[in-house]
Amino acid sequence: MCVPFGDDVSAWELENGLVAVLKTDMLVDKTDVPPGMSLQQAARKAVVMNVSDFAAKGVKPSALLVSLGLPKNLTQKDIVDLAKGLNAGARENDCYVLGGDTGETSDLIINVSLFGVAREREIVLRSGATPGDIVAVTGFFGKTSAGLKILLNNLQVSASVRKVLVESVLMPQARLKEGLALSRTGAVSASIDSSDGLAWSLHELARAGKVGFLIETLPLAKEAERFAEQHKLDAVKLALYGGEEYELVLTIKPGLWERAKWAAVEAGGMLMSIGRVTARRGLFLCIDGKRRVIEPRGYEHFKSDLVR
Amino acid sequence: MCVPFGDDVSAWELENGLVAVLKTDMLVDKTDVPPGMSLQQAARKAVVMNVSDFAAKGVKPSALLVSLGLPKNLTQKDIVDLAKGLNAGARENDCYVLGGDTGETSDLIINVSLFGVAREREIVLRSGATPGDIVAVTGFFGKTSAGLKILLNNLQVSASVRKVLVESVLMPQARLKEGLALSRTGAVSASIDSSDGLAWSLHELARAGKVGFLIETLPLAKEAERFAEQHKLDAVKLALYGGEEYELVLTIKPGLWERAKWAAVEAGGMLMSIGRVTARRGLFLCIDGKRRVIEPRGYEHFKSDLVR
Repeated sequence: MCVPFGDDVSAWELENGLVAVLKTDMLVDKTDVPPGMSLQQAARKAVVMNVSDFAAKGVKPSALLVSLGLPKNLTQKDIVDLAKGLNAGARENDCYVLGGDTGETSDLIINVSLFGVAREREIVLRSGATPGDIVAVTGFFGKTSAGLKILLNNLQVSASVRKVLVESVLMPQARLKEGLALSRTGAVSASIDSSDGLAWSLHELARAGKVGFLIETLPLAKEAERFAEQHKLDAVKLALYGGEEYELVLTIKPGLWERAKWAAVEAGGMLMSIGRVTARRGLFLCIDGKRRVIEPRGYEHFKSDLVR
Repeated sequence: MCVPFGDDVSAWELENGLVAVLKTDMLVDKTDVPPGMSLQQAARKAVVMNVSDFAAKGVKPSALLVSLGLPKNLTQKDIVDLAKGLNAGARENDCYVLGGDTGETSDLIINVSLFGVAREREIVLRSGATPGDIVAVTGFFGKTSAGLKILLNNLQVSASVRKVLVESVLMPQARLKEGLALSRTGAVSASIDSSDGLAWSLHELARAGKVGFLIETLPLAKEAERFAEQHKLDAVKLALYGGEEYELVLTIKPGLWERAKWAAVEAGGMLMSIGRVTARRGLFLCIDGKRRVIEPRGYEHFKSDLVR
């Protein structure tokens, strides 16, 4: 098997150096759908969650199957909304809903199974980080954890900031174009998406590569910073221990840094250096001469009792 | 797309006449797990359900992904039992569990996504039945509906009969070897599995082929007949309107009947002629000069309130 168990996707060898790439991920309303998220948005998110893992591996998704677990109280309009969301998620990422299954369940369940074909040698694993590599991300962090606090606890913030933060939760985007472009450069030594939070993703890459990370720039979204100031929250924590952010977290071979950066820009995105891979194990955030340990804590799905 | 939407599996074109075959099916405890079925059996069944659809299409499954939705009250032993059942189902059908996802749900959910590769021209669709073809099945019917009545309503029957009937519910077998062997003969014009009941499967093949069926032999299992006599039930109904039986229902080109029959036997199973495909639409059961309409009724999953 060319992709080890526990990486973001699974793979099955075909012929001529090609592999079938497979992924399944289950969205459950009580832990994955915050208040304010429509059924259409929830179904779209179920697709985006899966596409994001393909993006991290540099694999183009082709087709998806959906299992819907439907509570009794859903109306026909609700089902149509779910279908619209699934199609929107598929269309935005240039893939197709091929089929699926439905059943009656207590929770709303949207299980997406994603399929694509890739050249085996182009798949980027979690495990390739090497001392000296540049640690990079495709965007800024903290927006979704701030957005979730707004939706769950009804915290207040100015309309323009609120819009950005809430939108990041309700309409997440997978970095598919960036992921595909980056994998083609050959510059990426390891990659993962940040659906479990930036800190967790860094720990996973470090563990898989048997290396450490020294993070010197915190990629904090300015809207999350504003929100943290206003509510006297630790902005660093918002950025490190959030989740469901769907940015890519990568390590880049230093000699190919410029090529990688341009590839991300040409794909319509960006790539930002945030630190270095170290031979010494351990994950540290060093900013303005202050050193802080990055804990191996991940995003915890909000609990159902907070939501409904 | 070489497999139309609504057939038992979905397909995605690869190169050189090959296609990736995909299927997803969700097992939910409250509608799919009768009392008396262990967690290990439930997980195994979730695999068998999916493999049965591949069997009907003549496609060998290679790998599967699993999403587990786990209620809070499950113990570690329960999870191990689920894993054992998944592995048993995979091993029995010569395929591998590649990966998956877990989440917290109110019901126990076991969603299996199955993947395989096939030659496009070897996939048997629902839609090829032609007037004059022989209607055939790979086994006898009625056991699972009788078995379910025993489990759900605690009906009594002799120990040896009970064993066969209950076993058919708790340890269903997909007719994979037969399905693969039959598709290779080129004799099969249409095929479906009988998970929604014999009558429903016949109606599906008739609808897709724009033909009718005249059924002259009812493939009634002798244990189901004994059970029906004892409890004054209509044995014909048990056989026609049961479900979750996982036999194959096929139409066979008459010139290749002997070849098909031998292929099934050599695969360790059997193939039994039960009637003919007719140009005239409509589905009739004609036995001993009596004609009975086969209704387009399917198996309805038992309701949760009956079970727990």
